[in-house]
Parts: sequence; C-alpha cells; structure tokens
Amino acid sequence: MLDITRQTPPLPGAAPLSREADATLTEQLAARFAERIRARLLAPGARLPSVRECARRHEVSPTTVVAAYDQLLAQGLVEARAQRGFFVRGPVAEIRAPHFPPAPRSPVPISATTLIRGMFQPPGAQPMPGLGTLPADWLDAPLLASAMRKVSTQLGNSALQYGEPAGEARLRRALAARLAEHGITARADQIVTTVGATHALDVVTRTLLKPGDSVLVDEPGWSVEYARLAALGLRVLPVPRGPEGPDLAVMERLIEAQTEATRPRLYVTVSVLHNPTGASLSLQSAHKVLQLAARHDFAIVEDDTYAHLAPAHLPRLAALDALERTVYISGFSKILTPSWRVGFLAAPSRWVDRLIDTKLLTTLTTPSLTELALAHCLEHGLLRRHAERIQRLLNAARTRSVELARAHGCRFMAEPRGLFGWVDTGVDTERLAQRMHDDGWLIAPGALFHATHRPTTLMRINFATTQDARFWQALQAAREAQPLS
Amino acid sequence: MLDITRQTPPLPGAAPLSREADATLTEQLAARFAERIRARLLAPGARLPSVRECARRHEVSPTTVVAAYDQLLAQGLVEARAQRGFFVRGPVAEIRAPHFPPAPRSPVPISATTLIRGMFQPPGAQPMPGLGTLPADWLDAPLLASAMRKVSTQLGNSALQYGEPAGEARLRRALAARLAEHGITARADQIVTTVGATHALDVVTRTLLKPGDSVLVDEPGWSVEYARLAALGLRVLPVPRGPEGPDLAVMERLIEAQTEATRPRLYVTVSVLHNPTGASLSLQSAHKVLQLAARHDFAIVEDDTYAHLAPAHLPRLAALDALERTVYISGFSKILTPSWRVGFLAAPSRWVDRLIDTKLLTTLTTPSLTELALAHCLEHGLLRRHAERIQRLLNAARTRSVELARAHGCRFMAEPRGLFGWVDTGVDTERLAQRMHDDGWLIAPGALFHATHRPTTLMRINFATTQDARFWQALQAAREAQPLS
Repeated sequence: MLDITRQTPPLPGAAPLSREADATLTEQLAARFAERIRARLLAPGARLPSVRECARRHEVSPTTVVAAYDQLLAQGLVEARAQRGFFVRGPVAEIRAPHFPPAPRSPVPISATTLIRGMFQPPGAQPMPGLGTLPADWLDAPLLASAMRKVSTQLGNSALQYGEPAGEARLRRALAARLAEHGITARADQIVTTVGATHALDVVTRTLLKPGDSVLVDEPGWSVEYARLAALGLRVLPVPRGPEGPDLAVMERLIEAQTEATRPRLYVTVSVLHNPTGASLSLQSAHKVLQLAARHDFAIVEDDTYAHLAPAHLPRLAALDALERTVYISGFSKILTPSWRVGFLAAPSRWVDRLIDTKLLTTLTTPSLTELALAHCLEHGLLRRHAERIQRLLNAARTRSVELARAHGCRFMAEPRGLFGWVDTGVDTERLAQRMHDDGWLIAPGALFHATHRPTTLMRINFATTQDARFWQALQAAREAQPLS
Repeated sequence: MLDITRQTPPLPGAAPLSREADATLTEQLAARFAERIRARLLAPGARLPSVRECARRHEVSPTTVVAAYDQLLAQGLVEARAQRGFFVRGPVAEIRAPHFPPAPRSPVPISATTLIRGMFQPPGAQPMPGLGTLPADWLDAPLLASAMRKVSTQLGNSALQYGEPAGEARLRRALAARLAEHGITARADQIVTTVGATHALDVVTRTLLKPGDSVLVDEPGWSVEYARLAALGLRVLPVPRGPEGPDLAVMERLIEAQTEATRPRLYVTVSVLHNPTGASLSLQSAHKVLQLAARHDFAIVEDDTYAHLAPAHLPRLAALDALERTVYISGFSKILTPSWRVGFLAAPSRWVDRLIDTKLLTTLTTPSLTELALAHCLEHGLLRRHAERIQRLLNAARTRSVELARAHGCRFMAEPRGLFGWVDTGVDTERLAQRMHDDGWLIAPGALFHATHRPTTLMRINFATTQDARFWQALQAAREAQPLS
C-alpha cells in the first residue's frame, strides 16, 4: 500500500526516459542528473558517464547527452575538465560563495550521504539491498496501530505535559525486564529513553567526551557513526573487527601509542550481529575487552541495535560488566518500525543524571505516546512473538540469499548471520554501485564502512532484500561489464 | 484527571510529614531532603535550614531534625561545616571519585536545573508559577486525540518507514502557509522538522558553529539556552535586552571589542514575547539588528516559541530578512502540548542540506505520526481557533494576575504582555525561591535568566498560573520574613 500523501520523488534512475513526456529527452536527462546530484546520489567530484556511454545506457543520441550536460553546466551543478569529462561540482555551500559565517564542512563523508539519503527514499518497485532495515511488508502495521489505539485511551493528562525527563517510567520498567533476558541487570532508573538509538549515541558521547578526545571504533563499521563522532570534534581510532570481536593486539598497540592527552576515553562497538559483518563478540573477547578497558581506563558504548534479530543468550559487554563502565544502547527501528523513533540507553548510575541533562539540552523530553505504545508491546509479549516471526522469515531469506550470492560468484567474508552479509564481489564496489544505481538498485559498497576512504571489492547486503534472483543477475551483469580489481 | 500509570513522586515539600505513616518522622524528613537533593531541587552547596527553623517548619522536634540530618550525612548527601551548618555536597560525580573518563561537568548551571527538573514534575495540588507552560486544563486533550485518530488511519506504509529526512512534506507545506501569516516567505523545502524547538536550536548551532565560536544572546534570557550553547563549547556574549529589543549600542561595542577569531558568528534571540520580560522587538530595532548583522557578517537564530500567544502581525526578523541570514525556529509545546515534541526550523536554502545532515546525525528522522497530526490541526484551522481561545484566557488571567501582583507590592519591569511577567519583589529571589519551595510553590528567581550568576530581586511569573490569591499571600509572607535587599 502506497501512501498518496507522501510526495517524495521516486528513486531517480529507476525508470527509462519517456518519448511521450511533455519535457524533451534532453530536459528529462538533465533533470534526472540534477536530481541525483541534489539528492547526493551522485557525490561531488564524481565523474558523469562519458557521452557515448550515457547515450547507450539511456538509448538517446550523443547530441541529446551533450545538450543535457550543457544544461547541468549552466546550472552550476557540474564542471567540465579538459580531456577528462564532466564532474559533479564540490559542496553546494562552496559554489555559492556565501559571505555568511562559514559553517563547518558537512560532517557526513560524501559517500555515506548517498546511503543515508537513500534510506529515506520511499519504496520503489524493486527491493533495495543496500538499505539496513527490514522490508515494510515484513513488519506488522496492525500490531503497531492497535498498540497506539490502546495507549491513546490510557494517556490522560500525560498527553498535555512534558514527559518525564528520563522517559516514561512504565517503558523503563518494561525495558529493565527485557534487559534481564540478556543477563543485563539494570534498574528502571538507570534507563533513559531517546529519539531512536542514534539519539542515545549522541547523548552519551556528548556527555562523556569533549572535543579533541579520542574514541576507539570497530572497522569496518557504520560510517554514519564515524561521521557523528567526527562532527563532535572527536578523534576516531579504528580497530579491525574480526569474527570474534575487535583485534585486541591492534587495539592495545593503538592505545599504547597515544599520549595522556590523546588516550582513548571510549570504545563504541556493536557486539551482537555487527554491522556490516554480521559477526558477534565471543565470550572470551568480551572478557578481554573489559580487562583492557579497566587497564586503560576507558568507557564502553555497546550499541545493540540488532538485539531482536539474534538469540537472546549471546554475550553482551553490559552483562559481563554489570553496567560498571558500559553504557548499553538499543532501539526498535530494526524490529518494529523506524517511524516511532524510540531508543534508549542503560548506564552506570553515577552517569544517569548527566545523561538526562544532555537529553534535556538536546530535545527536552521525548514523546510519551510511542513510549507507552512500546511499553504495551513489551508487557504483553507482542514484541517477543513478532521478533520470533521475523527471525523465522530472516532465516529463510538468508538461506536463499546466500545460495544466490554464491551461485553468482560472490564470496562471504564472515559466516552469514543476522541481517547483513559481508560479500566480496571481486570488483571495485563503488563503481559497481554507480552502475547498479543506473539500473535502479541501491547497493552498499564497502567504502561506506570504513573510517577513511579506500577502494574495496566488498559490499554489504541485506538478506531480507536479496532473495530476488533479478538482483543477482543484474549484479553479475554489472560485474562483468567492469574490469576485475 | 490524573494518570495512575505515572509513578513519579510528587513535588517534595508539598505535603506535611505524616505521623500515621510506616516510616518514622526522622526517616520521612531525611527521605524528603534526599529526594530533593537527588532531584536537584536543592543544589550542591545549598545550605539546609537551621535545625531550629526546620523543626518549626515541619512541626517536629529539633531531635528529629538532627537525626534526619545525620542520616543524610551518612548517605554522603550533605556535609557539616563547623559553626555554619549542613550543606548539600558537590556534584555526585565528584563525591564518588570515579576512576572512569572524567565527564565534563554538568553543563546546566546548577540553578537552572532546579527549574528545568521542576518543569517535569507531575502537577500537584497547587499551580506552579515558575513553570513556562500553560496549565494542562487550558489545553484541549480531545482536539489532540481526535487529530491523532484521524491521521492514524491515513498513515499507511509511512507507519513502517523512516520519515523523510526533512520531515513530513504535508506538515512542511502547512507550516509554510502558517509562516506567510507572519510575513515570512518560506518554501516547504526550506523547512526542517525537529523534536521540539529545543532540538531545532541544537541542530542549527551545531551546523553553523564550531567549538570556540562566539554567540550573542539576549540577557535576561532562558538559561537552559545559555547552558546548551556553553555545552557546545561556544562563548556566550550577553547583550542587555530592553523593551524595544537588544541594546544595539552595547551590542556594537561588544562586537568591536572582539578579534577576528572571537567575532560573533551568530545572534540567538526571542523577538516576540521575549522570555522572561514579555517584550517584543520593535520594527525599528529589527531593521537595525539586521543592518548590524550585515555589517558584521553574523547569522541570526530567531526563536519564536511564543508565536501563538501574540498577534500574528508583530515584526519578525525572518520576515524583514526574507530568510537571507536568519533561521526561524518555533514549536507547539506552548500552545498544543509539550508531549508531541514537534518543532521546526525555516532556513536560508543554502543551509538546508547541512541542517538535514545534522538532524540525521542526531536523531536520524523524526516521528511521522505527530507531524501528520499537527499538519491536520494546521490545515483545518483547528490550531488557529484553539490559539484564539488561549489568547482570550491568557488576557483575562494576565489582567487578574497583574492586579494581584501590584496589590501585593510587586512592580513590573516591563509592560505585561503574553505569558510572562518580569517582576521586582524587593528581596533576593533565590532565597525567596527556597522559602517558597518549602511551602510547595515553585517560582522562577531572576538568577535563572542570567548568563552569569548574580543576586537579583526579580522573578519571572507565568500569568496563567498566578491568578490564585493564595500564591500572592504566600509570597508576601515569605518576603516579609526576609530582610530587604
């Protein structure tokens, strides 16, 4: 069911140009590129296809392409470089030469914005294997609507007030009970609700760190998280993430190479079903990470975004550590719906007041209605039953996707688990992504998961959206059109 | 109607100690102080009442008080200073001597936390003249519930997806139409929704400024805003706010005293119904502020939180400036309900993409449901009719409150307008606030509205909650018990 009240344009590039449209082919082609550039699906510095290639792909004459590129030039969106072709111009802010306070450069690495903006495109005809969420048709809209209706009638005066600073007490009690299933002992007053897990990460880092501080992160990892840390003026120290957890020898060397001023204050990690590799921390690694944290006196943020897609018993740092130096973070975007925007953190008691202060400074409080609806889902076992159903669907999807991936010549870098597969395609995946995008497929090239830009043949796939053989056929065709790296 | 699902304790100090309770009087008294200290209603460094005074106020024996204070000592919450009495101990983080990463000190000035935490206490038996919101019984719960029901059925698939990065397009179109009523020309694509106006302020400052930059603010002003700016590592430059607007001569001298490195990049101001004075910017001042901004090349954030409580025609900087260097911010907590947490910003086009990036990094997107419900209220004129009703109620309340205030010896520092009165009590209002708090009244002492702590005889009152003669009688009694400043 498509919501007709939503007006966002469809993913550009998904449909062929039309000879019946009011606009000329030149105008259509120019408009398509312009939109792609504005939506940052074509990054500044990216080269436009050659005139010949573009003409072939879009089945128009080279003259049409030249005219379209001329229009983009006139609009200041691209620039021509002698002998080399047409390139997307640098950040818009620089083009327009503002005499206003120079804002710091966009903190999101250019390539990350492609994916992050793509996340918010309304669903098109084709699945988008690059996205990190479950397909809408796996989710349970009636469950959500019924929970909302239920709590609306119980709201009373809390509909007219600020919520509690820490979040709805009823939800915090339900979350404490849920954490106990992971072996994490947290009282409701150690829990603070947030606007999704992203806000929890923001609140924690702003409370515990100051600009210039160093932070350890897993690499590969989710580049929006790197961007968030960099935007706060933090120094990001990447540690290679293996199948059992971070490479502890590298982590220790990295720590010892720092001075007192640059020593890491925090380690941010996804311990269960790590994004993008799907690997989970082993019990032994968890123990060693905590020993290292004690020896070098740093705090830990454990981001458990994928909690509901994994068996409950997998080890959590927050369980071993008993919330002594670990802040546990999770949310419900990956299991219930991203639209509710409810996340939370569970923290050592001595940090809770300051975390609430930071929450107050960023959003005052959080909306009560969705927090109570979530409490309802937790209290009545609705979330548990839904998660069991999703895990069954995901297991089946993963089996099928892995088979298709292997049949089309891709290789898994880690044992396939959870939502994401970390796949070697054998060719440069950034170029592959551009090419696939022309065919209307959004994929997540490996470069998006590195703290510094580097060419890679890896990509992340979402098992829930890679069961379609057409995707793998398109991928294979795109790979074959590209020289091996 | 009180919501029995809410478990927050009532405002401490509002009820007498009970001789029928399970706990002894000593335990009750100690628990009450402990709670007040933890809720920061008693700030670190604050002196507890003398044993004799405490005994008198709570109608217990001095022995009971001594025993209660001993319990607080044992709990590490207070310390005894020879010859001087008992004092609340410093920040909890320091007491417990953590060997963890030293978090920066709580960025909220101690006294501001008193008010900010008080904002989130559930309503007690008495009105709270210190709070900045309308009383719950002025708001229209059925209107909100019906809007929510209406849009729930229209949600469709958007209940299962991330909202659009900029916010629901339908709401942004309705907001653009609303802004036109203030003479502000903004396209829907210049508008970005946020989690309340506070989040909008956070997103704008994080996008336009970097740590170390200087910001001009009005003084007096809302100290949580000063705290937010300070927490971002910004230098706060206060400019005296008069009845017509900021003192432009002082502003100019302040700017000229800076070096290139410290010159202000931004001016944050509430132009209409300024908090706490209630004054609105004159047309002439608005023009001069913009001239100064152009000459010294700084941006402006216009915080129009009280927009719905004032006539639509009052001049806005964003209208004069046509959103050239001004970002306009507003929200609906003051008129519809604080629980929805919907705010927005309207910005110069060239900044919009970077503002959306910052929003993505802080909360990804915002919840769709409340945004659509608000769009519904705007589209059908429901908000307009509600605001007209509130303005009538507020006008009547203000007339009565002003009369009572004057009859009880208070003097208005500015012409009473809108929601807030800025009142001279003749005595130090911080001590007055402590004393009133013992009687269960939360007031907002003038010190909360200054960037640096200073003694003052001023306080801010909320006209909606000062129509009760008992409040003014209690205030008069408390003033008389206190020597004149």
